[in-house]
Amino acid sequence: MTTARPTPRLPLRPELAGETPYGAPQLDVPVLLNVNENPYAPPAAVVAEIADAVTRAAHGLNRYPDRDFRELRGGLAAYLTRESGVPGLDADHLWAANGSNEVMLHLLQAFAGPGRTAVSFAPTYSMYPEYARDTFTGWIEGRRRDDFTLDVDHVLATIAEVRPAVVLLASPNNPTGTALALAEVERVLAATSASGPDGASTVVVVDEAYAEFRRPATPSALELLADHPYLAVTRTMSKAFALAGARVGYLAAAPALVDALRVVRLPYHLSAVTQAVALAALRHTDTLLGQVAVLREERDSLVTWLRGKGLDAADSDANFVLFGTFEDRERVWQSLLDAGVLIRVVGPPGWLRVSVGTPQENAAFRAALEEVLEP
Amino acid sequence: MTTARPTPRLPLRPELAGETPYGAPQLDVPVLLNVNENPYAPPAAVVAEIADAVTRAAHGLNRYPDRDFRELRGGLAAYLTRESGVPGLDADHLWAANGSNEVMLHLLQAFAGPGRTAVSFAPTYSMYPEYARDTFTGWIEGRRRDDFTLDVDHVLATIAEVRPAVVLLASPNNPTGTALALAEVERVLAATSASGPDGASTVVVVDEAYAEFRRPATPSALELLADHPYLAVTRTMSKAFALAGARVGYLAAAPALVDALRVVRLPYHLSAVTQAVALAALRHTDTLLGQVAVLREERDSLVTWLRGKGLDAADSDANFVLFGTFEDRERVWQSLLDAGVLIRVVGPPGWLRVSVGTPQENAAFRAALEEVLEP
Repeated sequence: MTTARPTPRLPLRPELAGETPYGAPQLDVPVLLNVNENPYAPPAAVVAEIADAVTRAAHGLNRYPDRDFRELRGGLAAYLTRESGVPGLDADHLWAANGSNEVMLHLLQAFAGPGRTAVSFAPTYSMYPEYARDTFTGWIEGRRRDDFTLDVDHVLATIAEVRPAVVLLASPNNPTGTALALAEVERVLAATSASGPDGASTVVVVDEAYAEFRRPATPSALELLADHPYLAVTRTMSKAFALAGARVGYLAAAPALVDALRVVRLPYHLSAVTQAVALAALRHTDTLLGQVAVLREERDSLVTWLRGKGLDAADSDANFVLFGTFEDRERVWQSLLDAGVLIRVVGPPGWLRVSVGTPQENAAFRAALEEVLEP
Repeated sequence: MTTARPTPRLPLRPELAGETPYGAPQLDVPVLLNVNENPYAPPAAVVAEIADAVTRAAHGLNRYPDRDFRELRGGLAAYLTRESGVPGLDADHLWAANGSNEVMLHLLQAFAGPGRTAVSFAPTYSMYPEYARDTFTGWIEGRRRDDFTLDVDHVLATIAEVRPAVVLLASPNNPTGTALALAEVERVLAATSASGPDGASTVVVVDEAYAEFRRPATPSALELLADHPYLAVTRTMSKAFALAGARVGYLAAAPALVDALRVVRLPYHLSAVTQAVALAALRHTDTLLGQVAVLREERDSLVTWLRGKGLDAADSDANFVLFGTFEDRERVWQSLLDAGVLIRVVGPPGWLRVSVGTPQENAAFRAALEEVLEP
């Protein structure tokens, strides 16, 4: 009689068993309003500048890139100062990586990880728990109010109880579009100077991926940076700069916080080509922010139109609108898809999220939705 | 009397305290032979192809990239089949990321991490323990023999004792240039089918970053893939394809192993631009491998020359040579630097590593070293 040997298997970490790769469905549909992309392709002048910059970089691609990418960090700092009016930002305050998701990874690698906890408040960006999982960080999710605003008392109670290493606050929030008031962020910051592990501070990350789409009266947490050494404000070139395909996320924070990220980043994580593309796009800030202005107007029109149809639409400072509610949102989503318009099933039950497209794409969405709403 | 409040501080993970960012010094010196770059800039035809490909991609950069980059994975599979003669590789066997260091990160995130251990055998690539640290993986380092070959009995004893989730074996090894025989890898693989955590297998990673520089009789571990589902062979476009600045690392493994990496990768981790650049370079494989052939000859000449000077030079299957030994290697390194030649202080005490440059650069290195060796 032989003893059965155990069948060998991959040493997949137990928490990954049965997990599938993250990602919205990538379908081939005429009107793509599902992943909050900027609908405007880079204009010809931007494409030409990118091509020139990459050609110059290509001549030296046999060499490793500048590990500290000071030129790009300086360019991003100058852009943020201009965009937000906040003075005093320079390369030492800036960090960048392949998408703001890699920036988040660096933050959690440096400050969170095993035995530590990150918290956020739902409904919010569905990738946050994945960043926690990827860095073996504990994950606690509180709740936002029913109107999607942040209940700061609940936030402070959660922080006092959990003593998190990192708090993630999206503003404008995804998928709701809700921005934070500076007073709300300040109340959180006032409570976190020694609220983290072992008496250290909690790092407060304000995720401003959609900041350029905020309405005129909405502030940026960049205004709080000078007084708050444990605040990190993350941004991305994916949305306002129409560069989702180039993968450039970044953050602004105190230099000491940035220096900690330099320790955990993989060396040469940002390619010479990525650096060249980002710098080329920054040279066309005026043009690209002009397109953002069009999208902001389209967004406001879309909110008004949805409410005119008797639907709920959350106030939005982003390039998308959460609307509803529907008894069977999957049916609505499918009907729109059948009409060639792809949106996203995300958010609390009954809600759907639509990205703001070009005027033509938004018209197609409205026409398709009107069909669905007909009695 | 007031009680002093503790000074708030960043919640930096304790194991990172005092750590500095990894990286060789980036100095402005005429002859750079310190980081094993390919000395040949991409030829004009490759630059033009990259420029064209990026221009095409730039028109769609407002959209997220293809998350699964099937075209690039297929292209890399076809290249590996051609380069190694190993049939049957396709896109499902391939994975890629921003440098082979990100590939290693994915491997450790999926299979190692907290409570698990990775092992390697020194002297070897100095980044391996950093990958372990970045993923909160335990790290055990065994030893190679004095002639830098792998002592497989010691490897097997270490595996039996540690039960590692991942074993990292570089072939050719950095910084020694030493390649593994297939029989050595096979002995390791035969011992690892249930040697990992909880009775799972150990993943054996053969790091072939420098594989294209191997001498004619040296095999690739790709030949073992078909029979070994827990083997991963990593490669890079940094060296043979002269694309260090573009950051493209990749691996070949069984599809089930690749699928596990898809779960831990950040979504859209490989930009549309990076995908375009890599595919463009693959279309010029002949040209780029022609330059590799020149470098191989230069490498062999360099080994012969060093030995002719009465020095030790390790057999090398890579684009660098470890040589010595010197009572004061720092002095030798500085003297070469003073003569405009930057090499690397790395490896066991007394040894130095020089990358293989162009014939002119190698001549400059030889001339500078002769000066140092004069009595």
